[in-house]
Amino acid sequence: MRDALVAAAFRLFLERGYEQTTVDDIVALAGVGRRSFFRYFPSKEDVVFPDHERCLADMTAFLAAGSEDDPVRRVCDAARLVLLMYAENPAFSVQRYRLTKSVPGLRAYELSVVWRYERALAGFLRDRFAGLPDGVLRADVIAAAVVAAHNNALRSWLRSDGKGDAEAAVDHALGHVRAAFGAGPVAAAGEGPGDVVVVVSRRGAPLWRVVQELETALGRG
Amino acid sequence: MRDALVAAAFRLFLERGYEQTTVDDIVALAGVGRRSFFRYFPSKEDVVFPDHERCLADMTAFLAAGSEDDPVRRVCDAARLVLLMYAENPAFSVQRYRLTKSVPGLRAYELSVVWRYERALAGFLRDRFAGLPDGVLRADVIAAAVVAAHNNALRSWLRSDGKGDAEAAVDHALGHVRAAFGAGPVAAAGEGPGDVVVVVSRRGAPLWRVVQELETALGRG
Repeated sequence: MRDALVAAAFRLFLERGYEQTTVDDIVALAGVGRRSFFRYFPSKEDVVFPDHERCLADMTAFLAAGSEDDPVRRVCDAARLVLLMYAENPAFSVQRYRLTKSVPGLRAYELSVVWRYERALAGFLRDRFAGLPDGVLRADVIAAAVVAAHNNALRSWLRSDGKGDAEAAVDHALGHVRAAFGAGPVAAAGEGPGDVVVVVSRRGAPLWRVVQELETALGRG
Repeated sequence: MRDALVAAAFRLFLERGYEQTTVDDIVALAGVGRRSFFRYFPSKEDVVFPDHERCLADMTAFLAAGSEDDPVRRVCDAARLVLLMYAENPAFSVQRYRLTKSVPGLRAYELSVVWRYERALAGFLRDRFAGLPDGVLRADVIAAAVVAAHNNALRSWLRSDGKGDAEAAVDHALGHVRAAFGAGPVAAAGEGPGDVVVVVSRRGAPLWRVVQELETALGRG
């Protein structure tokens, strides 16, 4: 019945527009009562994003189960769960993207959902960085960077009508964050601790360029 | 009259609560008509954040006037304008922080304002990084990191009831972002291009630790 309500809602949103569709219209088309609607969705906005609560729960469980040494990698993998939710049903995701762009109230709803994902990631990192200097600051900044990178790739994919390899795009985007803040794949593979790298750089060079050189030297580019 | 409306609104919000206060209550206390209220504020929410529109305009103008070589430094300085707005009136900012925390609708409003600041910063960086590989991605990630660092320091200051040096806290937080993504103060000072730094590192070290060593070597820690 939940899926039928989502399908009815989107059919009406696309036909008449979001604002012009009432919950009564949706339940009439789905052939159920109002109470059934509100059993699944607290409001009309929630039917637009039917899977975020499940995805947030999955992300929280994934982070709680984390035993990995590299916390930045873990939050990148957690962010990937959101992408996978979108990629499960590209046509639906693209429709919703267009709808959300055109309705300010849905944009606001989406910002609050993104904020909850970001807080889940930041909370995990805050725990892992507890006791480190500026641990909370570092956690918040990395969580924001992970979300921004993820959403940059996700939006590009949605704008291209769900064509192309969304997972590869998100991995590439998250690679930037891991290069700036976290251990890369080489470190994760567990190289010998005596393996030494030397980087020579101009003192005046911007730090991100030096980091790029460093990534190349470390084979993490 | 604008200031009188803000003062009346906050007096009532604190006395009765935000939800329990109507625009009619506010205009009655301020001794003006409803039309005057809506001339200044599109909605009750807007009176809670009376200075963000001006600050957004200031930020946009500041970024447009930017001729600096280091775009990451420029967006950090632009973010600082928001902090200065809060620091102009610490008692008011602390009151509003408490109010915003307790009213979900205001939290949502604040998220949308933060998003607009972030888009202003990202737009500037996208222009500056145009043509660079992953320029848009890099712009979005840095803008998000700048906003997260700024807000981390701002929130700490607000939670401490506006005590302590807010500007120093924000500068410290933004220093993290500049260390990860942008040129530091030494580069900005214009050192000779032949000045060379050598960093030796274990290949297996997390990249952020290597960057820390690098910062120390470059005197940007």
